[in-house]
Amino acid sequence: MAIEIERKFLLRDLQVLQGLSGQRIAQGYLSHSPTATVRVRLRDGHGWLTVKGLTAGLQRDEFEYPIPAADAEALLALCDAGVIDKTRYLLPADGGLCWEIDVFHGDNDGLVVAEIELPSADHPLPAADWLGAEVSHDPRYFNSALSRTPYRHWTAR
Amino acid sequence: MAIEIERKFLLRDLQVLQGLSGQRIAQGYLSHSPTATVRVRLRDGHGWLTVKGLTAGLQRDEFEYPIPAADAEALLALCDAGVIDKTRYLLPADGGLCWEIDVFHGDNDGLVVAEIELPSADHPLPAADWLGAEVSHDPRYFNSALSRTPYRHWTAR
Repeated sequence: MAIEIERKFLLRDLQVLQGLSGQRIAQGYLSHSPTATVRVRLRDGHGWLTVKGLTAGLQRDEFEYPIPAADAEALLALCDAGVIDKTRYLLPADGGLCWEIDVFHGDNDGLVVAEIELPSADHPLPAADWLGAEVSHDPRYFNSALSRTPYRHWTAR
Repeated sequence: MAIEIERKFLLRDLQVLQGLSGQRIAQGYLSHSPTATVRVRLRDGHGWLTVKGLTAGLQRDEFEYPIPAADAEALLALCDAGVIDKTRYLLPADGGLCWEIDVFHGDNDGLVVAEIELPSADHPLPAADWLGAEVSHDPRYFNSALSRTPYRHWTAR
């Protein structure tokens, strides 16, 4: 088990993506229970099964296991809501940290989100002049929520 | 992925358990979605994470992965309904098959069920004069259902 401490932002300048190469990710959810989400992910030919516990502030427990890609494909077909399709770009940051910038496709087209995993909840954020508003605490931006209520269907943004 | 073809019975004679040694199993569910259940199991110090697809007749898809026992313990705490506590006894049967007899404890105390995994849906059942009524198609006996509505709380049996 790992403890994940993550902050999430919109982008005010997409130029930061220029020159980066991304990886396509398909992911869906086998559970949206109040206490845990169960995520299936297929990324660059590799499958993953991940359980995430309740979010407490910025922090949540995460349990991640590699699974065969063929299993991930079959499990995505069992997911009870839409499968998220996105391209992830990695951008190294100061202090050995790394921004993960997700450009969504399909029903979430138009949404671009930058996430960073921090070593502690009060760790300073690496400087990034391309960051927009923070959305860490807005549950609409949880990927599990986007699979059920995609960005295109939001009435207010 | 494996395809699981299973038949399930009550027992009319518990003498069959005499002389067998069992293994205690704790299991809970991270998802009761209509399309898939996600099961966490701790058995004899080993953890497992298992996704089972929709039941079609006697058959369902099963995806099972070993996980650290400490993860299984932490995941059991995230399960959104009761954790099932049972002792499993194995009884070899003709043709290389094996009966799994589960004696439930706690809120499912009093329930004893024998299951057998068959190589095909029309495979003949090995002879067993201790078998009671078949309950393969009664969803109350699904372990995922027993975690939410345990045997003690059934109004009719």
